[in-house]
Parts: sequence; structure tokens; C-alpha cells
Amino acid sequence: MRTRPLKVALLGCGVVGSEVARIMTTHADDLAARIGAPVELAGVAVRRPDKVREGIDPALVTTDATALVKRGDLDIVVEVIGGIEPARALITTAFEHGASVVSANKALLAQDGAALHAAAEEHGRDLYYEAAVAGAIPLIRPLRESLAGDKVNRVLGIVNGTTNFILDKMDSTGAGYQEALDEATALGYAEADPTADVEGFDAAAKAAILAGIAFHTRVRLDDVYREGMTEVTAADFASAKEMGCTIKLLAICERAGDGASVTARVHPAMIPLSHPLASVRGAYNAVFVESDAAGQLMFYGPGAGGAPTASAVLGDLVAVGRHRVSGTTGPGESAYAALPVSSMGEVVTRYHISLDVADKPGVLAQVATVFAEHGVSIDTVRQSGKDGEASLVVVTHRASDAALGGTVDALRKLDTVRGVASIMRVEGE
Amino acid sequence: MRTRPLKVALLGCGVVGSEVARIMTTHADDLAARIGAPVELAGVAVRRPDKVREGIDPALVTTDATALVKRGDLDIVVEVIGGIEPARALITTAFEHGASVVSANKALLAQDGAALHAAAEEHGRDLYYEAAVAGAIPLIRPLRESLAGDKVNRVLGIVNGTTNFILDKMDSTGAGYQEALDEATALGYAEADPTADVEGFDAAAKAAILAGIAFHTRVRLDDVYREGMTEVTAADFASAKEMGCTIKLLAICERAGDGASVTARVHPAMIPLSHPLASVRGAYNAVFVESDAAGQLMFYGPGAGGAPTASAVLGDLVAVGRHRVSGTTGPGESAYAALPVSSMGEVVTRYHISLDVADKPGVLAQVATVFAEHGVSIDTVRQSGKDGEASLVVVTHRASDAALGGTVDALRKLDTVRGVASIMRVEGE
Repeated sequence: MRTRPLKVALLGCGVVGSEVARIMTTHADDLAARIGAPVELAGVAVRRPDKVREGIDPALVTTDATALVKRGDLDIVVEVIGGIEPARALITTAFEHGASVVSANKALLAQDGAALHAAAEEHGRDLYYEAAVAGAIPLIRPLRESLAGDKVNRVLGIVNGTTNFILDKMDSTGAGYQEALDEATALGYAEADPTADVEGFDAAAKAAILAGIAFHTRVRLDDVYREGMTEVTAADFASAKEMGCTIKLLAICERAGDGASVTARVHPAMIPLSHPLASVRGAYNAVFVESDAAGQLMFYGPGAGGAPTASAVLGDLVAVGRHRVSGTTGPGESAYAALPVSSMGEVVTRYHISLDVADKPGVLAQVATVFAEHGVSIDTVRQSGKDGEASLVVVTHRASDAALGGTVDALRKLDTVRGVASIMRVEGE
Repeated sequence: MRTRPLKVALLGCGVVGSEVARIMTTHADDLAARIGAPVELAGVAVRRPDKVREGIDPALVTTDATALVKRGDLDIVVEVIGGIEPARALITTAFEHGASVVSANKALLAQDGAALHAAAEEHGRDLYYEAAVAGAIPLIRPLRESLAGDKVNRVLGIVNGTTNFILDKMDSTGAGYQEALDEATALGYAEADPTADVEGFDAAAKAAILAGIAFHTRVRLDDVYREGMTEVTAADFASAKEMGCTIKLLAICERAGDGASVTARVHPAMIPLSHPLASVRGAYNAVFVESDAAGQLMFYGPGAGGAPTASAVLGDLVAVGRHRVSGTTGPGESAYAALPVSSMGEVVTRYHISLDVADKPGVLAQVATVFAEHGVSIDTVRQSGKDGEASLVVVTHRASDAALGGTVDALRKLDTVRGVASIMRVEGE
């Protein structure tokens, strides 16, 4: 065992950071044995220096994060601030001053992962970020290392606990979106401003990261199609139940067409109750990975929270620490495949469409003709009506999103179609 | 990219080996890009050299595995022969001649893992074996690396696909053990001699490996309590259903008492239908991991088969290949905690006991007294009877296996107890 300790700086000391600091102290002996060197908390950058932080020496606390990462004697910088700036500048500066970096920052990695990886490589340092996707669930490392000899075709996952809590609540109680959101907020599962979660920004960042690793291709946040779940209604859940499905907000990364391009998207979708993702309850996360040789794998666990996220951060800290001790680095960015990212229009899936229509003869024929003209094949149609108004529920075979979009535009122009009540993709079949 | 290829020798070319060779050929470009050097199949040791092996140059095939591993120019030896010898000697010789080793050999690693790790370390080489436990499911790497900063308290898993197929069949169709085994054999899920699977030897080897990694302690096959599933009956499944449970053959590794020791065991057990492991169907595997910070994680996927096992082997091949290119090694054995392994008697769990008793007043009081005298607290008792004979089903609170054993011995001595029809542990609550 090396006796000179590895110096670790912590940027951010909120829910995750304080837990990282606590475990570094309480499990110091285990961490030292596993790394091959003791770890020393060398500094903690915070915004509010006066807050009492149990177990952290006040002499280590600073508000000058830039000066901390410039010290030059740091081995590892742990970034748990979140957001783009100042995190990006601090990480870059940390590399320039010789430190490796462990980050939990999904937004930054989804937006600027390539540049950060390049900076790490330029300075011969590690950039690890298991905590950025699905909290404690080992996902980055299995994709980057365990499946490195396989060809991943699809990643399909529930990667946002807040929205899964809300959708699970709507499913199990029949509550509407607002009511379920209010409960999530009251219980601390949703933030005061839930936009990042419910509009799918958080999941889209994770989808970009997962797609990049799975397909050895750079995928940026802007490449990810994103649709939130604020418009999912109790009626949608009723429709899903009739289909033997439930509704989840899914992040889906897959090879498109003949595998020559990739797509990444986040949207609510119906999935069959028999699919393992359908039974992921509350704020849990789970990710399905489909590959050529391994077949279907699933990874399940808590997707957020201070302790679970700290577990992922500390796993990376041990890996990066071992590399510091042995003077090496782990695998860097793998983007050699450089596949083009296709647009949402090229995604092929099935659709569940609810239409409000006039209750008169010939409507079904009109609607069916529109689907046929756009090359979208109908699997089932269900018609119900009363008082001159009727509804049509159409479930399609697999079709491109562009073809479906064209179909819906044309349906809206029919006199006999009063409105398109909902369009939902059907996945996981 | 390094242009000189990494030379890989394959020991064994059966279901797994032939798949490894196939993927090495068809995915050569991807493997080269991910490793940073091309890989070259330098030799294939087989028992039957005359068998036609599609895609493998006959000039590479040899029956002299020892000469192959002694060549001295090999970078990586992939051992997929299985069994103790000659695999052990070949792996040791491979290290002595400068190769790193990727193995899928659970029996050997469970029996001699420490010596093999020591040989790897002595020669500065890697020993990787993701494929030894639960086929394609990334489990060794997540435990060894992702959770390296956490404290694992329990590993609870279905790690044998053959027995899970049989038990699932018994559960879903009401079939008896023999009938379900026959179907498993006919479908190729069970071998002609199913002993290693149905008597729990295979699962016990995996439990030893998992416990060793999870608790940073050497756990050998002999340390694992083992009970097969050949005596599970349709009546046991009926009892389980009444409890809201099903029956699975579980591998359970946990810290005992106050965490100062560990236990590892394999036996059939009732688990609640609400537990995620209860819904693992057919020949699939799944492993639950409980840790201090991460909480509950689950890893799910195909536990066997040529392609899934090859996926795990190739993931290790890429990792070990990267290390060869950069002149480093990954984490070796971590056994620093060196916790004592407690005997089965110290395991604490709940029990479901079915007794055949005389149908007369006072029997329940007698039986309850025996439980009380041995310090085993009863949760529920259900009594049913006809024609002078009756059955008592007792479900206990948590008690040590030693206390339960003493209780059962004393029950057998009661005149009013005709027999102990079954004893089954209840887990996962």
C-alpha cells in the first residue's frame, strides 16, 4: 500500500457531496485497501461557507472553487455541482492542473462530453461519470466495459425517477397529472420547478450519454428527440389498460434502419404489462439493454438520492484512484464508429391514436384511406359512439414517425375528424 | 492504434469457444477499435481435431493445449474448457509464459481462485472471469468496480438457469420435479447428467465467487452450504402459493451477525411473489445486490448459452486487451477484509415447516412448546385434519438455522408427530 494519500477535492457539498464526504470518512480504511492508497479530503468548494457541515473540517471549506482546482496537488476532483457553468470551467481547469475527474453531471456530459473527454485525454487523466445516469445503477461501466465485446442494438430505459413516480401514481390510483405531481412534490420526489424532469430534459441528457457509449458515437443533447409527459391523461392510462399496457416515460436509443445510423429519443410510451420495465415502481429506474450476443439484459435500482448517487461516485473514485496509484488511465471516450444520428422522422415504431369523429357512416372508411395513403398499416381499430359523436382508436403496425406525422396532419383536415385526442407510441413488444 | 496484433489463444472450442472465435472474426474491426490494437486468433486447443469448425483455420487447431500456452508469444489465453484439470495447469502455465487469462470456469475459480489470482499477480498479468457467473449479466465487474466505494451487505440471486427453468415449470404447470426435469432435458436446458445443476453445485461455485468479491474475503466452494432442489414437490409449491410466495433455488451471500463474518449458501427457498426475483422466468438469471449506499440493485439476463457467455468473455477480452496495450493490469483479487466464514447454523432466516401429526387435542400445544424451548418464535400456525391424521404448517419468525435444526430434531421425537413433511426457508422479505 502506498502511504502518501490521494488528495481529493469535492466541488459541491449538497445532498450528494455531503454523502460522498461522509462515506470517505467513515469507510476510509476500506477505500484505502481497495484503492491501494489512503484518500484524503483536501478541500470542499461550497456556495454557503457558513452552513454547518457535520464531519467536515471547516478549514477545508472554501468558496473559491477555481483556486481549489488550481492547487496543483490534487489527484482527483469530484464535481457534484451540476449545471453547465461553472462546472465545465472547473473540470477543464482540474485536468489542466493534473487531476482526474469524477462527475455526476449529466447535463454537462450530454452537452460537452466530447470536449471534456478530449481535455482528459490531452492531460492523461480519467473522466468518470457513472453517477450521471441512473444514480447507483451500474450502467456506464457495464456498457463501456462489460459489453465492449458485443454489439449493442438498443437501450430502453426508465431513467428519471420523478416522472416514473408520477406515472406510477397515475396508473395505480387513477389520479390526473397535476394531482400526482403535487404528491411527488410534497414527498420530495419532484423539485419546486419540475420542468427538467417532466419535460424530459433530464432523461434526454441521459439518453445522449447512453447512446454515445452504446454506439461508440458522439450523441449530443440536441440530437435527442424529446417529448415530456405533462400531457399524459387518465384517459391515456385507461386506453393503455385496454391494450394490456401501462405508460412510462422512456429513453430509447437504437440503431436505425440497417444499423448504419442511430436514434435517441425520450417520450411517454405504452409498454405491455408483461415487459419487465412495466413493473418498475415509484422512483426506481431500470434500463434494458439488447445486444447481439448477450441478448436482453436489465439493470434496476434507485435512480437518484444522495446515498445511491454517492455510491456511484465512490465506485468511480476507487477506479480512478487505482489508476492514479498505478500511473494509468481507464478507457477514454470511444466514438470511433461515428454513426450519423437520424432524425425522429426515421424512427420506426407502433402508434396508438385516439380520434374524436362524427358518428356517421363512412367515417371509418375515410380514416382508413388516409392511413393507407401514407403507407401506415392499421393493426386494430375500435369504434365507439353516442349522441352523434364517436371515437376511433387506431393501433398501427410499425411505421416511421414521418409517415405517422403525415397521416395525423391529413386526418386533422378531414371534416369528419373533430380532433386528435392523443397519439402515443407503443414500445417494448 | 497499435498495428502489431494481440495474440489470443482459445482453450476449448465448444458452444462458447466457437462463438468467441466467430465474434472475434466477424467483429474484428470493432474489437480492434475498442482495444486499440487488432486481435489475432493464434491457436485453438481442442480434444477432437477432426471436427469441422466453420470459420476457424484448421492450421490453428491443435490437441496440444500445453504446447499452445507455452508458446511464449501469446497476449491472452481464453479458457473455456471448464472443470479443474487440465484447466488449472493450463492457466498457471499461461501466466508463467506471459499471457493474461480470461476464463469462464466457475468450478475452478471457486475452488482455486486465490492461487490463480496469486499467479496472475506474480507475473503481472490479468485474470478476468465475468463469464463464470450468470453468463452475459455484468456482475463481477459491477461488484468489483462499480460498488467498490460501497459496502455490500447481501447478494441474493438466481444463478442457475436449469433449475430456474424446472422450478418455473413446476410453478406454472403444477408438474412434479421429474416431469419438469424431463422437459428441461428434452429442450436442452438440462444436461444428460443434471447433478451439477439440480444438486446446487453449479450455483454454489457461483456463490463462492460472488461472496468473495462482494465481501473482499476469500470464500471457497467448501465454505458454501449447499442443498439441491430435487426434493421440492408440487405440495411445496401449493404451500408457497398459500403464503403468497413461489420457490426459487437461491444463492445467498450475506454478512452475518454484526457484519463481522460472512455466510454463503445455496438452497431452495420461498420468496414473496412481490419480490422481483419471483418473476424471473425460464432459464433467465437475476441477482439482487443490497448495499449501504446504493440500496437495492438488480441485474437480470440470460445466465447461460453460447452467445451470452461469449459476450461476457469478449468484454473481458477487450478489457484485458486494453491493459496489454497500455502495459497495465486491472484490479486483482481483493481479499483484504479476510472475514471469517460462518457456518450454516449461524444463518438467521424464517422457516416454513409442514408436519404430519396425530389429530388429537394437545398436539399444537406440544409442538408450540418444542419451538419455544429452542427459542424459535412462531409467526403463524395453520392446522388442518381428517380421519385421525392432521397437518400443521408452522411459519416462524427469524431464527438461527441451528435453533431450527434443534427444534426439528425434537419435533421428530414427539409421539404425536408422524413426520416432518418439509422444511423450507423463507427469504426476500
